[in-house]
This record gives sequence, structure tokens and C-alpha cells, in this order.
Amino acid sequence: LVRRMREFGETIFAEMSALAVRTGAINLGQGFPDESGPEAMLRHAADAILAGDNQYPPGPGVPELREAVAGQRRARYGLEYDPATEVFVTVGATEGIAAALLGLAEPGDEVIVFEPYYDSYAAMIAMAGAVRRTVTLRPDQGRFTFDPDELRAAVTPRTKLIMVNSPHNPTGTVFTRAELEEIAAVCREHDLVAITDEVYEYLTFDDVEHISLATLPGMRERTVVISSTGKTFSVTGWKTGWVCAPAPFVNAVRTVAQFVTFTASAPYQRATAYALREEGAWVENLRKSLQSKRDRLISGLEAAGFATLRPQGTYFVQADIRPLGFADGLELARALPERAGVVAIPTQVFYDHAEAGAHFVRFAFCKREDVIDAAVERLHRLA
Amino acid sequence: LVRRMREFGETIFAEMSALAVRTGAINLGQGFPDESGPEAMLRHAADAILAGDNQYPPGPGVPELREAVAGQRRARYGLEYDPATEVFVTVGATEGIAAALLGLAEPGDEVIVFEPYYDSYAAMIAMAGAVRRTVTLRPDQGRFTFDPDELRAAVTPRTKLIMVNSPHNPTGTVFTRAELEEIAAVCREHDLVAITDEVYEYLTFDDVEHISLATLPGMRERTVVISSTGKTFSVTGWKTGWVCAPAPFVNAVRTVAQFVTFTASAPYQRATAYALREEGAWVENLRKSLQSKRDRLISGLEAAGFATLRPQGTYFVQADIRPLGFADGLELARALPERAGVVAIPTQVFYDHAEAGAHFVRFAFCKREDVIDAAVERLHRLA
Ligand SMILES: CSCCC(=O)C(=O)O
Ligand SMILES: CSCCC(=O)C(=O)O
Repeated sequence: LVRRMREFGETIFAEMSALAVRTGAINLGQGFPDESGPEAMLRHAADAILAGDNQYPPGPGVPELREAVAGQRRARYGLEYDPATEVFVTVGATEGIAAALLGLAEPGDEVIVFEPYYDSYAAMIAMAGAVRRTVTLRPDQGRFTFDPDELRAAVTPRTKLIMVNSPHNPTGTVFTRAELEEIAAVCREHDLVAITDEVYEYLTFDDVEHISLATLPGMRERTVVISSTGKTFSVTGWKTGWVCAPAPFVNAVRTVAQFVTFTASAPYQRATAYALREEGAWVENLRKSLQSKRDRLISGLEAAGFATLRPQGTYFVQADIRPLGFADGLELARALPERAGVVAIPTQVFYDHAEAGAHFVRFAFCKREDVIDAAVERLHRLA
Repeated sequence: LVRRMREFGETIFAEMSALAVRTGAINLGQGFPDESGPEAMLRHAADAILAGDNQYPPGPGVPELREAVAGQRRARYGLEYDPATEVFVTVGATEGIAAALLGLAEPGDEVIVFEPYYDSYAAMIAMAGAVRRTVTLRPDQGRFTFDPDELRAAVTPRTKLIMVNSPHNPTGTVFTRAELEEIAAVCREHDLVAITDEVYEYLTFDDVEHISLATLPGMRERTVVISSTGKTFSVTGWKTGWVCAPAPFVNAVRTVAQFVTFTASAPYQRATAYALREEGAWVENLRKSLQSKRDRLISGLEAAGFATLRPQGTYFVQADIRPLGFADGLELARALPERAGVVAIPTQVFYDHAEAGAHFVRFAFCKREDVIDAAVERLHRLA
């Protein structure tokens, strides 16, 4: 293994999901729903396979999906993207993030990330030979947020990119307009490019609105927007995502992606195009259902002795383990399958400054209600 | 776009396939069949989607596929791989190649590649910050081969890896045991790791046998074998591949792949597992049918005035354009859609020393017979 990747072991999701399989524990770790999304969308994908749509699609993605994505960005955010030159289909958002970082970050460039962060950000920054600078999200009045001064202090003359994930995994924070304006101001002042990971764009609760950073003044031209099918339509395994950005950024993404995976599979692309056009009501129901599952899991966790933060979006709730007498979330998460038959994700592994997240573990609520209830019942064993 | 990727534009396959779509020309350029493989395999994939197998599979791949791959390597090559630690599923062979290069090549390391080479090799070597050293394949007695002295001369104290693609795209050469022994000797003497791209492992003709480099003495322990579903089962768009290698190499591949794409889609994995176990006869028919299509295309190209080399494997035939009075295959390939309504791939783009391939263009014969015939008829316009 090359030196620059040695600090990265097996991703925590693989480690904890393997542990779930091995111990038979209920997996509230890795974020995937246990029911797949719209029946008609599944049928579109299956039909495309049976109809023979099984060869390489065009490298940038099937035109039908690129148009559906452009239509979605227009209808939902009022942003125009040219499907031919400003939309590019990737193997999930993860490949979009990888290709954007590898295509845009020169060795020695600095990339600002908010911690805790999805672990691929750090790995791909390292692979690019770039340097990550973290701005810490901390609980404040019931949600995780950042200190604008800390953000400004993170900028140096070498800063080139900033990664913005909202709705935010793993904290569940949805950045407010004021927070996004702080970020946008820094981008404009220092001529930074923003890469926005918006895979939970539809999954916000309590009338909290997801605002796309690209809609802020001066930001469309300097933002690489990334989203995907997986979370919006409950098919995390489909690995179908997209990048929307000005053509030079799309070219950078394409130059990398075409040599990393070549193309993304066509049947999922066609099904996604259909779903983006037609399944808005299904997604709205998913959103409502997730909100009620969030509340169900939170009640259960509180009853089991955790203190929780009520997330504004995503699949995840952060649980503070101190009221139960624990201090180290990593230790607890590793013991949890044996002790309570439940898998959770230790939040600290997504921090460079692990102490900031030491006493949190992340539970997923994108599960059937009986699964949530069973997990909660088991967690009472901890008290 | 970062500096190290600036020599890489749009992949030739995307460029030429887009040209085919734009001009309505018959596409004998990019290598994909126009009929998808075994009906029952397609049904396995479609059924998995409809049955709800749409979430993240285990990072290393679904166990069923890892076992089927290990079984295939055992039955066909007599090689044992532990499905748990020595087999890893990737998003097509392309991701396997990318992850192997990015995971194993340090900046400054040298990687030997035979030219002409699949363009992703060069791009990922550059992305790793490594240096490619090419050994040229040249026509000799009806097939492309290399000079063993040139191979030995390419080794330096910085050499770490060698990429071996057999059956070879784009020349159609299948390396003989003698050629592989030359390569193996160099690997053993200089402690090199071989990355073998064996995606055409089943597609050889005239009783020519594909020999896996890993079967040679001392080679299993230093070879990263890469193959995939796409060519064996005529579903190039499925993007499902695998790596077989000793655990430390698999760990290097995994460390990169888990952050580049996270996982590969489950339905295709299940269908591939089925096909590897059950569809051997289908593949043997494909092989025979491709051999007769090869002969059909060669007869047609010869009648149209090209000189051809009869490939021993793959989807492709190399056509010498000089008998028709042309000298530059790139120029001809760019003009061909307008002049003759056919798309081919200029071989020279896969060479660092373009002159070695200047007068060749590559035609694909993995097409229906009526498509081959129609293309040949159009090519008569060139005379
Ligand atoms: C490819 S998304 C991986 C992230 C995830 O599964 C999670 O946060 O649980
Ligand atoms: C991902 S394989 C690309 C190669 C190919 O399509 C070809 O050689 O025609």
C-alpha cells in the first residue's frame, strides 16, 4: 500500500457492517434503508436489463438522465445547467467526490473540510497529495455548527477547495442560509471552489429547507454540486450519482472518472431519470416517514439513557453516551454488538480532533419501525 | 484540471462513440457487443432488483460472487484464492486497474506497460505520480509481439510494477507461454509486481489458449489478477469486475476502491456469480461465434483493400491502411464517419511512440453479422 494511504484502513462502514453480519446484531450503523424505493423505478431498471440495455452507455451518462438532473436542478433550485456540458453521471456520489478532488486538487493544495466528515473526503485529499484543513462542528443549542472565525482562520494562501456537505452526515445538521453565506463569503473572497455533497438534499425534517450553496450570489460559477440516486430513492446500492458544475469543472471530473470507472451502468440511469421526473410524491412520503422514524428512535434512545440531538436531516441521530456512564464512543461501538446486539458508528472516527466527537455514537433510523423498536429494546441492556 | 492529468483528454472511446451517434455511422470503434449475454443471467439481475437487493453490498463484494470467482480461478487455472481475503469485487476491471495502480505505485515508481495500451493505464500511472516505461508491441509474422531485450532494457532500479494485458486490447495478441516466461523471469529477477488485465480471458480463437501469468512459477505471489463480467458475458455496461491477489495486494486495492466508489452494485454481482457457475456453454458459443465474426470482418476488410492481422483473441482486428493509400490512422479514423459511415479506433493513440501504430486502425467484430456486412460494404467507398 502506498505511503499516502497508510493512515486509511478499512472504512468504518465495512468494519461495522461486517461486525453486524458476524454477530447477528441489528445494524443501525451503516446508512442504508431496509426497503427499496419506488416499485415503478425498480421495474424501469429491471426492464432495461431484460430489454438489453447492458452495454457501455455514453461516458458522460445517458442523455435522458442528464436532462432529468438538469430539470431537477432547475425546478428545485432555479439553477440552469446544460445537460450536454454541465452534467456528468458518476458511479454514485462517492465517485463524484473522488473525481472532483483528484481532478481539482494539486499536490500541496489545501482543502477545507468540516469535521466530522465522510471518510472518503480525507482519503481522496490524501490521494491527490493535497492537505486537509478541518473546521470543527460542535453541538450548540441542539445542533452541530461551526464558528465562522474558525472557518476564516482555516484559509491560507494555499487553500483551493472547500467541501460542504449539507444535510450533513454524520451530524444531521442542515446548514442555515446564514451559515452558507459565511461559507460563500469566504469562497468569493479567497477565490475558492466549493464541492457540495448534497446526497441528502430531499431528506430534511420539521420544515427545515435544504439550501444549495450554488444558489447563493456568485456561487454557481464556483461550485461543483454532487448528488445521487441512493438516498433520495432508497437504493443505496445502485451507485448512480451526478455532478453539476460549470463545464471546466465537469471536464476535470470527466478526465478522472473516465479512467477510474469508465462509465456508470445504464439501467440504473434510466430508472433514476424516470424517478427524478415522476416520483416526487414518493420522496415526500419517504421524508415524512423518516421524520417519524427519527422521532421514534430518539424517544427510544432517550428512554434507554442516551442524550440525543434531534437531526434536521439525513438518516442519522447523534447520541451522547455520557449519561450512561461511558466516555469513549469508539470503545462503546466496538463492544455494542456483543453487549447489546446493536451496531452503531463511533462519531469520533470522522474527526481529526477525535476528542470533539469522543462521546458520540451515530445511530441510523432509515429502518423499519420494528427494527428500530427491537434495537431500542436491546439498548436498554446498557443501563 | 490538475497538471498531471492535462495530457489526458476525453478518452478516445467516448470521442469516437459520440461521433458515431452524431453521424449515424456504424460503430466498429468502441468494443461492446450489440446483443447481451445469457438470458437467465439477465433475469438473475432483474429479479435481484425486484426482490429488493438494492442496498450497499459488503465492501469486498457479495460472498456468493467472491466464491464463484475463486471457484473459476481454481477450475480454469488451478489457482487457489481465499474468497474472504484474496478476492475483491470492483466496479469493472477499470476500477480494479485504477485501484491497483493508485494503491501500489508510489510517486516516482516506474511502471512498465506494453504499448499500445488501454488508455486508463497511462492515466492512472500519472495520477499516482508514477512514471510509465513502454515496451513496444510490433507486428511480426502475423501477430504483435515484443522484443525481450527491449523488455529487459525497460527495467531500472525504480521499476516496481508491470502491466500485462493478454488477450491484448487493441492488438488481439494472446501472449504465448514463452512470452509470459520472459515476463515472469523479469518479475522474479527484479522483484516486480505484475498487474494482469485478463478481461478477454475466454475470448481466444483457433485453439489458442489463454495462459494466466499467475500460473507461472513464482508468479501467483506477485500477481494482481484482474477480470470482469463485461466481455465474458456480453454485458460491458454492468461494470462488475474483480481482483484476485495475495491479501496484502487486495488490501491495497480495497483501501483505494472503498473511497473511490465505495462498493459495486449487488444485482450484477449475484447474476455474475450465477453465470460463472452455470453459463460456461454460453461463453463457449460466444467464443465460436466471435471467431466466425472475426473471419467475416477480416474477409470484408481485405476485400475493401485493407491488409489485416488475424487476432488470436479479443473483440478487435488491426487493419493496415497503407494498401489503400493512407498513412495516418488518426486522420483516417477522424474522417471515416463522414467518408464511409463507419467508426474505427486509431491504434496510434494507445502508443507513446505513435509512429509504431500510425498506419493501423482497430475495428471491432463483436457485432451482429448484418452490422459487420453493412460496415464492410460502406468501407468499399474508400477504394
Ligand atoms: C457511500 S456512502 C457511505 C456512508 C454511509 O454508508 C454512512 O454514512 O452510513
Ligand atoms: C472499459 S473498457 C474500454 C475499452 C473499450 O471499450 C475498447 O477497447 O473498445
